[in-house]
Amino acid sequence: MPKKARAAVVPEPNADLEIREYEIPELVSGSALLKVANVGVCGTDVHLWHGKLSGVPYPLILGHEVVGTIAEVGPTEVTNIDGDTIKKGDRVVFHDVTKTCYSCWHCLIAKNPTKCPNREVYGITRNPEKWPHLLGGYAEYVYLTPGTHIVKLPNHVSFDGASALGCAMPTAVHTVNRSPMKFGKNVVVQGAGPVGLMITILASISGASTIVSIDQAENRLKLAKKFGATHTLDLSATSLEERIQFTRNVTQDHGPDIVYEATGNPLAIREGILLVREGGAYSICGQYTDGGDVEINPHLMNRKHLDVRTVWGSETKHLYEAIRVLSSHYDRFPFEELVTHTFSLDEAQEALETQERRESVKAVIKPWD
Amino acid sequence: MPKKARAAVVPEPNADLEIREYEIPELVSGSALLKVANVGVCGTDVHLWHGKLSGVPYPLILGHEVVGTIAEVGPTEVTNIDGDTIKKGDRVVFHDVTKTCYSCWHCLIAKNPTKCPNREVYGITRNPEKWPHLLGGYAEYVYLTPGTHIVKLPNHVSFDGASALGCAMPTAVHTVNRSPMKFGKNVVVQGAGPVGLMITILASISGASTIVSIDQAENRLKLAKKFGATHTLDLSATSLEERIQFTRNVTQDHGPDIVYEATGNPLAIREGILLVREGGAYSICGQYTDGGDVEINPHLMNRKHLDVRTVWGSETKHLYEAIRVLSSHYDRFPFEELVTHTFSLDEAQEALETQERRESVKAVIKPWD
Amino acid sequence: MPKKARAAVVPEPNADLEIREYEIPELVSGSALLKVANVGVCGTDVHLWHGKLSGVPYPLILGHEVVGTIAEVGPTEVTNIDGDTIKKGDRVVFHDVTKTCYSCWHCLIAKNPTKCPNREVYGITRNPEKWPHLLGGYAEYVYLTPGTHIVKLPNHVSFDGASALGCAMPTAVHTVNRSPMKFGKNVVVQGAGPVGLMITILASISGASTIVSIDQAENRLKLAKKFGATHTLDLSATSLEERIQFTRNVTQDHGPDIVYEATGNPLAIREGILLVREGGAYSICGQYTDGGDVEINPHLMNRKHLDVRTVWGSETKHLYEAIRVLSSHYDRFPFEELVTHTFSLDEAQEALETQERRESVKAVIKPWD
Amino acid sequence: MPKKARAAVVPEPNADLEIREYEIPELVSGSALLKVANVGVCGTDVHLWHGKLSGVPYPLILGHEVVGTIAEVGPTEVTNIDGDTIKKGDRVVFHDVTKTCYSCWHCLIAKNPTKCPNREVYGITRNPEKWPHLLGGYAEYVYLTPGTHIVKLPNHVSFDGASALGCAMPTAVHTVNRSPMKFGKNVVVQGAGPVGLMITILASISGASTIVSIDQAENRLKLAKKFGATHTLDLSATSLEERIQFTRNVTQDHGPDIVYEATGNPLAIREGILLVREGGAYSICGQYTDGGDVEINPHLMNRKHLDVRTVWGSETKHLYEAIRVLSSHYDRFPFEELVTHTFSLDEAQEALETQERRESVKAVIKPWD
Repeated sequence: MPKKARAAVVPEPNADLEIREYEIPELVSGSALLKVANVGVCGTDVHLWHGKLSGVPYPLILGHEVVGTIAEVGPTEVTNIDGDTIKKGDRVVFHDVTKTCYSCWHCLIAKNPTKCPNREVYGITRNPEKWPHLLGGYAEYVYLTPGTHIVKLPNHVSFDGASALGCAMPTAVHTVNRSPMKFGKNVVVQGAGPVGLMITILASISGASTIVSIDQAENRLKLAKKFGATHTLDLSATSLEERIQFTRNVTQDHGPDIVYEATGNPLAIREGILLVREGGAYSICGQYTDGGDVEINPHLMNRKHLDVRTVWGSETKHLYEAIRVLSSHYDRFPFEELVTHTFSLDEAQEALETQERRESVKAVIKPWD
Repeated sequence: MPKKARAAVVPEPNADLEIREYEIPELVSGSALLKVANVGVCGTDVHLWHGKLSGVPYPLILGHEVVGTIAEVGPTEVTNIDGDTIKKGDRVVFHDVTKTCYSCWHCLIAKNPTKCPNREVYGITRNPEKWPHLLGGYAEYVYLTPGTHIVKLPNHVSFDGASALGCAMPTAVHTVNRSPMKFGKNVVVQGAGPVGLMITILASISGASTIVSIDQAENRLKLAKKFGATHTLDLSATSLEERIQFTRNVTQDHGPDIVYEATGNPLAIREGILLVREGGAYSICGQYTDGGDVEINPHLMNRKHLDVRTVWGSETKHLYEAIRVLSSHYDRFPFEELVTHTFSLDEAQEALETQERRESVKAVIKPWD
Repeated sequence: MPKKARAAVVPEPNADLEIREYEIPELVSGSALLKVANVGVCGTDVHLWHGKLSGVPYPLILGHEVVGTIAEVGPTEVTNIDGDTIKKGDRVVFHDVTKTCYSCWHCLIAKNPTKCPNREVYGITRNPEKWPHLLGGYAEYVYLTPGTHIVKLPNHVSFDGASALGCAMPTAVHTVNRSPMKFGKNVVVQGAGPVGLMITILASISGASTIVSIDQAENRLKLAKKFGATHTLDLSATSLEERIQFTRNVTQDHGPDIVYEATGNPLAIREGILLVREGGAYSICGQYTDGGDVEINPHLMNRKHLDVRTVWGSETKHLYEAIRVLSSHYDRFPFEELVTHTFSLDEAQEALETQERRESVKAVIKPWD
Repeated sequence: MPKKARAAVVPEPNADLEIREYEIPELVSGSALLKVANVGVCGTDVHLWHGKLSGVPYPLILGHEVVGTIAEVGPTEVTNIDGDTIKKGDRVVFHDVTKTCYSCWHCLIAKNPTKCPNREVYGITRNPEKWPHLLGGYAEYVYLTPGTHIVKLPNHVSFDGASALGCAMPTAVHTVNRSPMKFGKNVVVQGAGPVGLMITILASISGASTIVSIDQAENRLKLAKKFGATHTLDLSATSLEERIQFTRNVTQDHGPDIVYEATGNPLAIREGILLVREGGAYSICGQYTDGGDVEINPHLMNRKHLDVRTVWGSETKHLYEAIRVLSSHYDRFPFEELVTHTFSLDEAQEALETQERRESVKAVIKPWD
């Protein structure tokens, strides 16, 4: 059992990351210690660095997209969701939510656990100065508290392959699950960042006939093609009218059955309502931070007879299904190619800045490299 | 078999209605002649009078909310939806859509017949100068063309009771069907005009626990109470913050499970998004004419994890279910009280103007009085 | 804080109940002590008495349908599902499942918590010789362990009114939730025991147009009429053909949209498939014990294009919704009349035998009378 | 415009097929004439030959699985479902239902058009001695009556590729649409005949993780592997217990999420209920003829908390979606290999007998070869 672990810590909002060392606490019943292989650098990490989320107790060890190897298991058995025993040496991923209460109205009655007010999330809501310190992934080890939902990685899936999913894939699974996806559908995906790419993969795996990916970054559109898009549209090279016309042309003039929004840009909502066909569905999952208001036309929405769903967060179920998708379709897509940048723990600051400049598709920190 | 029929005709947009007389054509196979008892004066009739709908071939006999008695049946059997033979003397209502094609993509593949581009509607899309002339309800007789979907009125339901539903109830049925209504739900209904009142009735019949009706007209809020609302909120006497607080107070601080929009005012959309609870549903059916844009906040929508449905038009199914509701729950609500104004055919112009001033809840023309 | 509590205990299968006295343990964090007002005598209690359920650790304090008053709260705050603090003197009901794990595949991935293999149930799965002894309702007090899901009773609902629901209403809520119930539906309910009556109430509250209750006991059919049935059919006075014909006659010859099975008799399944209309739904929730096989015709089922759902157990959500229904519609039905028999704790044996002879609709034990 | 057409006719039940010649009637408004390329020989054709379906007016031109080329179009425009004009030379398929009424309760209210009592089907319900004679596919030409729903074949799809779908694929589409299919699901398909193979394809296209095909014919199991099955089970080489164990082994011990029945054997129902996991779904579409009763255990079904759907017939929508699937995934599966036997029109009798002996997977008649 290791004694200490190094971690990259945000001392306070906007301050540079520092490497600190923490004692690894004794493992209590139901807990386990994870040796971090990769931790993904998520857009949310940049927001956390800048102090843009409320209720976060700095200092903070960032990192909620973690894959690694079980280093130790506590005094009692720990099982994964399928009921298998977790053992030292297992390669695993875990759901980033430390705790969902399953005793509140949101969890039990409304059945929207992602709206549970008692949620705590690895790498976001816990102060490392308190026990058990190591609850963020920018570190050599993560302390998996009792009740953490663990999923084993299949042998044929590499750590980089798993890191490619990040927290984007569970979000995408949640989004697609809440939409009327089915074989033969025509879909548009607004945005080819991590979430948009994962939705593209899921649409392809689900048998969609037409998948149009829209983005302004050429390299992302190229990736979209590799990950299932049948067509791409460059936002910076086309007008709104051209995009409307193009999506109608490739859908027998009906327009797309489903439009997925994964951009973070409020203006995308206005465009999405114009793109989606009459009687179609619009799934919105990219508006995670407040980008301000946007003007929409209620009469147009009403006349179009739409089904609009907004999607917040992800549940353990979505991570579990994400790993199944990865495992079953690992040969179909070059998942590892999505990991475009790799950093050591000491380069964590640089990793954040690379992510902020949107140079990477998926950047990962490898604390042991 | 009568020979001629008087009808109130809009000669051209914004011109006063004129009484004209038409020959009643011979009944072809599958057709029937209806002696009009009541024809409802709908808000859409006012829009049609003012020429606000596109593609309408003036002159026009208004009237799509018709109840009456079968005067004659054509040379072949005519049946209602349940397969019963329609006979002279039957008291009936019929779906205002003359024809839905059931051969286009919208009808057959997307299964959204209210978006069928081949639809024709009594009182809206047919020129009375052409055969068979009498396809609007502001007339002594209506010629029911072959394929018209007819529903018999139960004996215990009066013509005024049936007129109380108008086309508002089928729209309300469609809207509630597309929402997660169920016993025990907390709902808010924005607007207590005909559609809002019908949604209120349906919510009550469906076992909703809390039904808050919001409107600025005191007489309509009083009716809402009679028709199932558990609470009312006067728009002109409360602030937005008060309405948000009130709806939380009566819902164990969760906010309403479902908000129904039936106002026609784009600003209602902004308020509805604020009112609905996290994980709740928002059903929009009141934005039938273009009232312009409204600003909404996509991040708020996304964070709330919403299910937003817009609802366009109604199908025969919804009329059929509307009559079942009326029949089964006729003793529970004073339906006839909703018919607040009655006019003769010669007073059709006055009927339209009364409707335009929003004095009536439901105004009807009785061509034989 | 009381020191001791009397309880009626099944010493071993088929042995007469004995009154035993247990120490009331100190309240741990998150726990509370309930002074039992009423405990319902359920059919399952009779099965437990006869040792018909596997894995039950005798001796056993029966009783999972408990209403009462909070006598004490442990050292930390206890909240109900709506987040309100539970206080001494509160009148409450609680979900009979002591614990659902919310960490297994059934809970998290399949989202069927009633199939969670880690479930423990008050009055069924816990041995009173071990801490905290008082986990069954046939007792003066019940020890509510941490995590028990508590629902407050509204002031206008009596203990007998709440006992009328028993565990039948949550089961009925689960069953109706899983069926396409909606206003205007025509339904048949097979069986007018507690679960069948509760389904009848829910169908009525949900606006069903036709509700046919089928049973062989005249007194139960009379109750069905009081609790919302529009028609009743006496199994012992009618043939199968007559029942098929009758249900078609009252449904415009279509047959019922939904048939609910709540009988416990395998033969009911065969009849239900015959009764339900083409394209209809069949909900089966009454086959809780193994009554053997029954012959059905797969071709008939296939040709009828059916939607068959079987329903196992209930979740906290269903209890929560049950109490909402009770509260909102308390004036509409004479709930207290369902409590037909009352016993003291010393008469617990007699209570079981009365239930076994099916004399009672709902028998309750009042430990303090 | 050709004048006459040869057709293979069943003179009366069980009599050998005869070649007869019919006049090709003038094309009325909305009709078109199809030159038959391939007509599939369906199991139903064998039943029709043996007089096993009721209400069939012999003599009869068999054949409802028709692909071919438009030879002539009537005096008015004919459009396909997407609204495109149908022209001479177009390669097309059409829905075998001549007419669905869209005016009865099943079509409009229950929305189950496959239960419409007014349906008429090419090759089944029309007597060739009456106008327009040519309503079955075992012929050189088929007269497409007004209202026939036509779908154009994409250029890259061969006639044999389209014939591979037969009427099995629309049935499979209907079945899968009514089931909770989604990426990552574990499914079992009972039967690897045409419908079972099509379900296998659809499961694969929909991203199912595990697809176990069960049949007793080795050649069909080999095809199942080619068309997406991840595992096969030979009914004749395994015991029921082995099949249960196997399907658990490949599903993390949970059992399959969905079992599809496509066998025609009543005993399959009993096995399917045993195979499906707790909380799973069972879709039954193979019991098209009455194979007698089967014993099932209602308690087992109830305890398993199942969702059982039976599926009857197919709609135009399902054919439309079938052609989309074929078009989008034509390169993924060797569709043409399913056409294992080819016959001339004069060999129609032999074609039927080959089908009856179950030697063919898909046999087609090519009337012009």
